[in-house]
Amino acid sequence: MRATVLVRPKPGILDPQGEAVESSLRQLGFAVDEARVGKVVDLELGDGDPEQAKADLERMCQQLLANPLIESYEITVTPR
Amino acid sequence: MRATVLVRPKPGILDPQGEAVESSLRQLGFAVDEARVGKVVDLELGDGDPEQAKADLERMCQQLLANPLIESYEITVTPR
Repeated sequence: MRATVLVRPKPGILDPQGEAVESSLRQLGFAVDEARVGKVVDLELGDGDPEQAKADLERMCQQLLANPLIESYEITVTPR
Repeated sequence: MRATVLVRPKPGILDPQGEAVESSLRQLGFAVDEARVGKVVDLELGDGDPEQAKADLERMCQQLLANPLIESYEITVTPR
């Protein structure tokens, strides 16, 4: 199955990349109030129990994909 | 309104960050077939015509957010 994990800086956490994107978009003439930049991780997993996969993904986020202190994450599992 | 843009390396394009994530996840004991890493950009836009916003977002992607040669992008607009 396939999983998509979105990792974003938590509200209030400084996001220099987002600030750079915001200021560049304004310089290009776009009306943008705020921009925040995070990561998208697409994972191809073996076929197995979707519930087990969700539990594994939760651990992957805690251990590697996100820094839970400053980042939030959102997991979506798509069966093939 | 709010927009989310997902920017991903196109299939076949080398993705060193994805390879690093894949190998680290395996070392942690997770069964992962493939990992690809891209960007998520969350944008807060003024209230306006959603169709116009979509056209603007398309241009933002072409001009700044993505490199259309090697990255694909996916735009989602959420009215507030």
